[in-house]
Amino acid sequence: MPIETPLSALLGIRQPILLAPMDFVSGVRLVTAVSDAGGFGILGGGYGDRSWLEQETAKLRQSAVPFGIGFITWSLAKQPELLDIALDARPRAIMLSFGDPRPFSPRIKQAGALLICQVQEEEMAWQALEAGADILVAQGTEAGGHGASRTTLDIVPAIVDLAAGRVPVVAAGGIADGRGLAAMLMLGASGVLMGTRFYASQEADIAEEAKRRVCAARSGETVRSIIFDLSRNNVWPAPFNGRCLVNDQMRRWIGREVEMMQNLKQVAAEYAEARMRGDFDIAAVIAGSAVGLIHDIAPAAEIVGRIVAEAEQSLQGRRNSLSSLS
Amino acid sequence: MPIETPLSALLGIRQPILLAPMDFVSGVRLVTAVSDAGGFGILGGGYGDRSWLEQETAKLRQSAVPFGIGFITWSLAKQPELLDIALDARPRAIMLSFGDPRPFSPRIKQAGALLICQVQEEEMAWQALEAGADILVAQGTEAGGHGASRTTLDIVPAIVDLAAGRVPVVAAGGIADGRGLAAMLMLGASGVLMGTRFYASQEADIAEEAKRRVCAARSGETVRSIIFDLSRNNVWPAPFNGRCLVNDQMRRWIGREVEMMQNLKQVAAEYAEARMRGDFDIAAVIAGSAVGLIHDIAPAAEIVGRIVAEAEQSLQGRRNSLSSLS
Repeated sequence: MPIETPLSALLGIRQPILLAPMDFVSGVRLVTAVSDAGGFGILGGGYGDRSWLEQETAKLRQSAVPFGIGFITWSLAKQPELLDIALDARPRAIMLSFGDPRPFSPRIKQAGALLICQVQEEEMAWQALEAGADILVAQGTEAGGHGASRTTLDIVPAIVDLAAGRVPVVAAGGIADGRGLAAMLMLGASGVLMGTRFYASQEADIAEEAKRRVCAARSGETVRSIIFDLSRNNVWPAPFNGRCLVNDQMRRWIGREVEMMQNLKQVAAEYAEARMRGDFDIAAVIAGSAVGLIHDIAPAAEIVGRIVAEAEQSLQGRRNSLSSLS
Repeated sequence: MPIETPLSALLGIRQPILLAPMDFVSGVRLVTAVSDAGGFGILGGGYGDRSWLEQETAKLRQSAVPFGIGFITWSLAKQPELLDIALDARPRAIMLSFGDPRPFSPRIKQAGALLICQVQEEEMAWQALEAGADILVAQGTEAGGHGASRTTLDIVPAIVDLAAGRVPVVAAGGIADGRGLAAMLMLGASGVLMGTRFYASQEADIAEEAKRRVCAARSGETVRSIIFDLSRNNVWPAPFNGRCLVNDQMRRWIGREVEMMQNLKQVAAEYAEARMRGDFDIAAVIAGSAVGLIHDIAPAAEIVGRIVAEAEQSLQGRRNSLSSLS
């Protein structure tokens, strides 16, 4: 049964579940699987690999379902021409995260696409509204990969109040089941954006071993730190850093960041080599704090279905205890 | 209208809203105001000031409404006789936070009181269940004052799953309005425990200036750190530290903890003096991340009423959009 929110008509979706544009992981297969299931798939444009983007958008162009394309804003600023490739695929929306969206907004609007802006602080939300954002994603520190420090329970109501009904707000960070979706609807969000739950899906473009580790990890076994970026010698602008599973690399370097930076060349070489051979004791498994809620590598459609069913059950359960209200 | 949950009959309350036992701040006036309004007031036994406890419990003994008494567990271990004073007042429940509850459990049970245990990690929850806890409070890092690092959205479902229906779970940390209560019910919690929202109530035993600062603070203007404890030369056992409003003291010392410790005697003397004269640029205003949701110093009964009305509105709103389900 559809859960209708202000996102439904805007994005042309049946369920208020957005796929996080995970760099490379959210490829065409996962994007279309989520959209086919009634959610909204967003391609992981990430840092902007031109040939990958051309290849994936060529397939998406033939897609009958609505979809989006996501970019890391500060990275897109270095290759602004990639936005044209993305817009040529006629996405329903472009999602920009981590940087100033204003320079890109006119082209996006002109092409008839919606602008989704992910924000971690109020100031970023004001900037996004100034850019004409149609949807705000309020991302809490619980999120896997890049993010900032404010928690989802803190930032979601803050952005909902700031948006004041002008645009719908989507909650991101720490959500992996229907209870989380229902909870975010209560906070005033119009939907959720999920990465980690779909990372452990059959359609995600990532090593099986990485997916298995997400399923095996317990709640509390992720950490947000600078180690992830230092390992790849790719430090982001403040206030962003990365959340990953706690593995040997994290245990080795947390608290020893200065030493790590003094040996960066060697550390980065070792890390690149570990990534090549799929050694996830060293290579990062990018994951959010909701790992403890994820126990299987399921098809994306099944994930969407389950979350909707769980959310309905949560909402329905409460409804019954409020029966005196009707 | 009452929001019924498994807490209702257990605690004899109409609304699933618990007052955090804030040291001294949650005195008899605030405790009885919250309980009178249908919630559950818990006296802030804190570190255990014997004469204050005797004075407050003497008044509570005549109370017609259910109430609880809270202690800092590791501090109670130094003065275990205080538990007898508390139990003599015939509380409905004793709440223990921050430490091993097992040594105190038999006396609490024998006296016919319920045991509420606040936990921040799974291991603590297992220990609490072993102690025979009747209610678990899952506290996220958003909480004001002492707490740990896991977020509310992370720890609440984790403890709900761990408890597996054996005991009700109450959510704490970052909740100050009805949206938060409704969201926590969706996560499977049976109620919420709130400190900061009641700190800014008319009945809270704390300086007006501190209450005014909570009302003025915006979301994002609190910080969890060791500065709070260092300032009072009272460092807690790991993994606990304290969340307060960002003030001059915080801005001055964050990142300079080593230097602070090298000058601890002087810093602590200056801090004690600032506390005496009510200088909250230096003295801590203990507050959680939900400060941005608090704008007035209201009577506690009005706070309870508002939160219930808001929660019902949130739940009701969703109910309508799920009307096809009935």
